[in-house]
Amino acid sequence: MSRVAKKVRARERAYKRKAGEKLAGLGKDVIEDILHTRPPKLKIPSRSTTNIIYDETNRYFVLGPRYGVRSAGSMKQVKKFAQLMCAADFSKELITSKKFATLREMYYTAEGWDAGPFHEQGESDAIIEDLEAAFGLKREDLGLTPEEDGAAVYGRLVVNEDGVVIDATKAGRGGYTIPPAIDDVEFVRCKAKRVIAIETMGMYHRLVQEGAWKKFDALIVGLKGQAARATRRFLKRAHEELGLPIHLFCDGDPFGFHIAMVIVSGSAKLAYINHELAVPDAQFIGVTASDIIDYKLPTDKLRELDVNRLKQLQKDPRYNTEFWQGEIKKMLELGKKAEQQAFSKYGLSYVVKEYLPAKLGLKD
Amino acid sequence: MSRVAKKVRARERAYKRKAGEKLAGLGKDVIEDILHTRPPKLKIPSRSTTNIIYDETNRYFVLGPRYGVRSAGSMKQVKKFAQLMCAADFSKELITSKKFATLREMYYTAEGWDAGPFHEQGESDAIIEDLEAAFGLKREDLGLTPEEDGAAVYGRLVVNEDGVVIDATKAGRGGYTIPPAIDDVEFVRCKAKRVIAIETMGMYHRLVQEGAWKKFDALIVGLKGQAARATRRFLKRAHEELGLPIHLFCDGDPFGFHIAMVIVSGSAKLAYINHELAVPDAQFIGVTASDIIDYKLPTDKLRELDVNRLKQLQKDPRYNTEFWQGEIKKMLELGKKAEQQAFSKYGLSYVVKEYLPAKLGLKD
Repeated sequence: MSRVAKKVRARERAYKRKAGEKLAGLGKDVIEDILHTRPPKLKIPSRSTTNIIYDETNRYFVLGPRYGVRSAGSMKQVKKFAQLMCAADFSKELITSKKFATLREMYYTAEGWDAGPFHEQGESDAIIEDLEAAFGLKREDLGLTPEEDGAAVYGRLVVNEDGVVIDATKAGRGGYTIPPAIDDVEFVRCKAKRVIAIETMGMYHRLVQEGAWKKFDALIVGLKGQAARATRRFLKRAHEELGLPIHLFCDGDPFGFHIAMVIVSGSAKLAYINHELAVPDAQFIGVTASDIIDYKLPTDKLRELDVNRLKQLQKDPRYNTEFWQGEIKKMLELGKKAEQQAFSKYGLSYVVKEYLPAKLGLKD
Repeated sequence: MSRVAKKVRARERAYKRKAGEKLAGLGKDVIEDILHTRPPKLKIPSRSTTNIIYDETNRYFVLGPRYGVRSAGSMKQVKKFAQLMCAADFSKELITSKKFATLREMYYTAEGWDAGPFHEQGESDAIIEDLEAAFGLKREDLGLTPEEDGAAVYGRLVVNEDGVVIDATKAGRGGYTIPPAIDDVEFVRCKAKRVIAIETMGMYHRLVQEGAWKKFDALIVGLKGQAARATRRFLKRAHEELGLPIHLFCDGDPFGFHIAMVIVSGSAKLAYINHELAVPDAQFIGVTASDIIDYKLPTDKLRELDVNRLKQLQKDPRYNTEFWQGEIKKMLELGKKAEQQAFSKYGLSYVVKEYLPAKLGLKD
């Protein structure tokens, strides 16, 4: 492992420790306030749309400077404040016992809290987002994970999960599954030189079958559509810790474009945590409107939904580059879209023998 | 491996060989017909709803005796017949080269066929279903796989995938992923005594974290909602080859019930292939309406959609048992449903410490 990688890894461990410290600090502040007969309070960065800003330098959405104060001194806020305390306590217990729980499990666990049950999960989720934003940490660092697993990974990567060593060429054709809490997984060894992340599992299995991981010295990552948080975190870590370039191979339609863009520049909704998830250097390697023309791909007509979505993307600051503006315009003019599996028109191996080498600049 | 298991396995291999033979037989028949200047034809069992019958003895849907004839001698059918020939040829190539393709890939590959492209994927899918029904074989045996992977498996099972040996306790917390073509995966060794299949990945990860696989000597299978074909095939093989009882742990709502029932008794849509997928002996271990009452679980009100669905299930022949009729009636009276994660009300470990032992009859 390189010196840089070790540094990044050390930072990761620091994050985990930080979560415990932040929670303890919050508790101390509250006790301090109570001892001085002051109503305890917490400053929480505002997540309202007016406080979400596209950061041109970092190339992802961040929160602006506005924040709110949650105070136990306000009749309107006291219940929410108490719930936040209970959630913080729950999180502390998770970290101490090295367990993880889903947001759904926390919602049900709250049935037994003094601060009373939540009416719907949206309320308990918001409390965790408050803690994430206030601490500048991911919910995973607080012991709370999403329900869904991350992507499938196939290629020359060896990881260590709590002492279990897994080789991602020996976990089966289905690949190594990125678990919801990926940050405590150690990258032990990596012989791959790049990551090729793929929108559909159909194409993932094509690339595994055709030995693309060997041919391109690549980790093949099957995204299963919109990338899960754990997948985005994995890709960011692969880029930062392992120094791998990230290539994104998606369908040639607005939804494929956006699957890639959320990996690149993060979503507005997660502005408070994009610094942990976004991979601004990740590169889109198709399918583009130009590819549709150049490769004479089988297409489908753009539906009204596609056209409207493309017009939205034109105005989205994340797509404000010559490449994207050009490709979106071209697709609208063309009135057509194409899926990544459309390359099968030229045979099942074509995508590995011709298309990807051209896109990756690996043509002989 | 037991003698029974070996027998079953040998049968599996026979299936794969059978696909090649069936395709060659079809080709021979066609050539024979042409040499005798007869229009080639193929008998295809009818998959129309009027020919789908619930088989009380086998406890799953099967096709009735009706069939149609696809003939090259009919102007109306000649194109479809030619497309079927091309699909059979494509399948033969896949089997010979030991490759798999998705239905989507075949749809696009057809762009280059003499029998011309399909207008939409539904048409090319139907051709493959024709071949499945005519041969009594799964599309996977013909080299065609669904896009999606199967479930996650965690526990004491060792499998062999083309020479790669995978231990399902060492493939990561995310588990061993059942690949789309599971039939050519060999079960090498199994120390588990039962399978616990789980609807949500949240509960899957809970069971893995709490060591349920060890405590119950179980393979923990994370279904990810409605079970994929590969998952159903895996469960059937685990039951038949390994002799494991299959327990299904789903949400306490009509959709959870049906996720279990499709594993147990198959779907009407796949009547032509249920003998390869259904596991009639699989047992539902909750959440039931009775559990909601007995465990005082947090609930949600039944929506109109739930009520309608429950009323449909009441009339469905697959639910024509005392257990199901009783539980459906009780849920309708109660007007409430509950998710499997609702047990977190009593703490994260409760489901493993109390609920499952009671359901599995493993209480001390």
